[in-house]
Amino acid sequence: MTAATDNAARVHVPLGERAYDILIGPGLIARAGREIAARIKGRKAAIVTDENVAAHYLRPLSESLAASGIEASAVILPPGEKTKSFEPLMEACDKVLAARIERNDAVVALGGGVIGDLAGFVAGIVRRGVRFVQIPTSLLAQVDSSVGGKTGINSRHGKNLIGVFNQPDLVLADSDVLATLSPREFRAGYAEVVKYGLIDKPEFFEWLEGSWNDVFSGGEARIRAIATSCQAKADVVVADERENGPRALLNLGHTFGHALEAATEYDSKRLVHGEAVAIGMVLAHEFSARMNLASPDIARRVEAHLRAVGLPVSMADIPGRLPPPDRLMDAIAQDKKVKDGKLTFILTRGLGQSFIADDVPASEVVAFLKGKHPG
Amino acid sequence: MTAATDNAARVHVPLGERAYDILIGPGLIARAGREIAARIKGRKAAIVTDENVAAHYLRPLSESLAASGIEASAVILPPGEKTKSFEPLMEACDKVLAARIERNDAVVALGGGVIGDLAGFVAGIVRRGVRFVQIPTSLLAQVDSSVGGKTGINSRHGKNLIGVFNQPDLVLADSDVLATLSPREFRAGYAEVVKYGLIDKPEFFEWLEGSWNDVFSGGEARIRAIATSCQAKADVVVADERENGPRALLNLGHTFGHALEAATEYDSKRLVHGEAVAIGMVLAHEFSARMNLASPDIARRVEAHLRAVGLPVSMADIPGRLPPPDRLMDAIAQDKKVKDGKLTFILTRGLGQSFIADDVPASEVVAFLKGKHPG
Repeated sequence: MTAATDNAARVHVPLGERAYDILIGPGLIARAGREIAARIKGRKAAIVTDENVAAHYLRPLSESLAASGIEASAVILPPGEKTKSFEPLMEACDKVLAARIERNDAVVALGGGVIGDLAGFVAGIVRRGVRFVQIPTSLLAQVDSSVGGKTGINSRHGKNLIGVFNQPDLVLADSDVLATLSPREFRAGYAEVVKYGLIDKPEFFEWLEGSWNDVFSGGEARIRAIATSCQAKADVVVADERENGPRALLNLGHTFGHALEAATEYDSKRLVHGEAVAIGMVLAHEFSARMNLASPDIARRVEAHLRAVGLPVSMADIPGRLPPPDRLMDAIAQDKKVKDGKLTFILTRGLGQSFIADDVPASEVVAFLKGKHPG
Repeated sequence: MTAATDNAARVHVPLGERAYDILIGPGLIARAGREIAARIKGRKAAIVTDENVAAHYLRPLSESLAASGIEASAVILPPGEKTKSFEPLMEACDKVLAARIERNDAVVALGGGVIGDLAGFVAGIVRRGVRFVQIPTSLLAQVDSSVGGKTGINSRHGKNLIGVFNQPDLVLADSDVLATLSPREFRAGYAEVVKYGLIDKPEFFEWLEGSWNDVFSGGEARIRAIATSCQAKADVVVADERENGPRALLNLGHTFGHALEAATEYDSKRLVHGEAVAIGMVLAHEFSARMNLASPDIARRVEAHLRAVGLPVSMADIPGRLPPPDRLMDAIAQDKKVKDGKLTFILTRGLGQSFIADDVPASEVVAFLKGKHPG
């Protein structure tokens, strides 16, 4: 990453003709018009957002676009995961076309992961592709879903099963907007920040252990944490844009985590994605220790840090009853496909030494889950 | 193009990692299983088709796939342009997912242009892209819509406004299936064959003038006509995959043609796409003569050939009343965008010497239409 003007950090994602910049810093919504006008030929934009985010940021964003000569219209959708489905997709496409957005104009995603995934899909299919700008407004979206080009909606057969790979033309991660997040939402996003350290950046994890208080209170440390995370994800995406290989490392903590999200029926009162990933990362490190791949001390250290920031770290931390270990294993098997009794997991050989293990015996996973299960 | 095995011609479309083959010849549905199994890793296929085509070809195709170890399921949609809309798209995505099609499995489009456009879109968005095979069953689809990678559905704002660029992994143009087309359908597809001659292959046009009877009766001449057309379209697409430049040449006859389709409210009893293109090509040549770009003799020669095969060649050939010239001009302007009173048209300087004219005065087009209008 490099320092950009106006206190922003810049991460360049070098994907050939799909290369783009991620700017991270304060006040980026206020200067969105200038940044977009500098990169996109068209002078129209359709802002896709949700009702909650619109209440805070739609007006300042529209004014910033207008000040740079970009005529903005808005598509305001209900908040929540249900918006990632066919009817809102159809509605958004219709409104973007009604706004006469052409190939050189932009769809601007203003919101969290749900809005980013939906709007990115819309931008990828209206007129077979128009320009696309992401303005992620949650920490999770800033460090995860706004980088990588995965867009889409859910199906009754599973999450994110319908979509396109669509790299944005620009990502503006305005660090000011994180002030309106609840502490729980911020923590959930922070779990993904920690993940990048645990994948292959032990020095970043160590820095977070010492500086997490500064990251939580905002300012330079927060920008550094976000920029390092975006750079880490960008590095993986550049190596494997279409997800055929090393990109799987980004799933550290996610196999256990997805099973726990399914087990709690995606009830955000009990567990949100980042919390599931936090527990999943601890489990992945504990399982690595069980398989004699890494010292149990590493798992304890990861657990201690996540607990310190207030994240759940074990199944016992999830309110309410969980299904039995066999049912959790079924959820894992559905997510990953078992082949000859073997599973693919992201495991670790030490702090920040994660790797793709494609021969994990399902029987070992079940035995491990039985030992960890609280009920 | 090159000769392939079993009497088929092969056109290779060299689009880098998206390169693919078009096979043209008899009996290709019967050997579809073998050709697909040789090119695609997965052993599942979802055949997207319509009720009419399914009645003839679904069973032989499924049997051919089964014989090569490919497990096939079918998504059977109603025939007609209305199938290119959101609800059938959603239904097809759902059924393809229910059939557990994974990234290395295939969606197979078995049908005309509507099915190809819809199925290609489905293949492009299910799991962010699975393998895609086209088996076009109309002459129009074999020479036009199955080459080029444009997929999509219509919107109330216009045709083909929502979709993706998605190149197939294989196209099988079975010349036997054309035997079940009505003469009118065959002629409509033939208009697009003629178009390739008129764009930049005068020798192909001359061959068609002498051999069209053989093309209409089937056999070698028909395969040659289809293969030459596919090669011509492939050449243009390779030069301009995303349609930023020379690909516009493929619109020869289409600007006038689209206006006539809109003027007849897409009523296929009055006018089908290929017929509109036939009239549009004659008008484009006549307009080129009016603008002193080409001899009027060329327009007369084009008209004579299209009339000889039984295609309509003037607005007077369209049954029923047409809207006045001003309304036709509105339809053209909607299709093309007028800039400072100027339009982009595909015009010609002689036989097979088409070019993109981006400064055509709208006033000249209106005056021309007034002279040509029958009522």
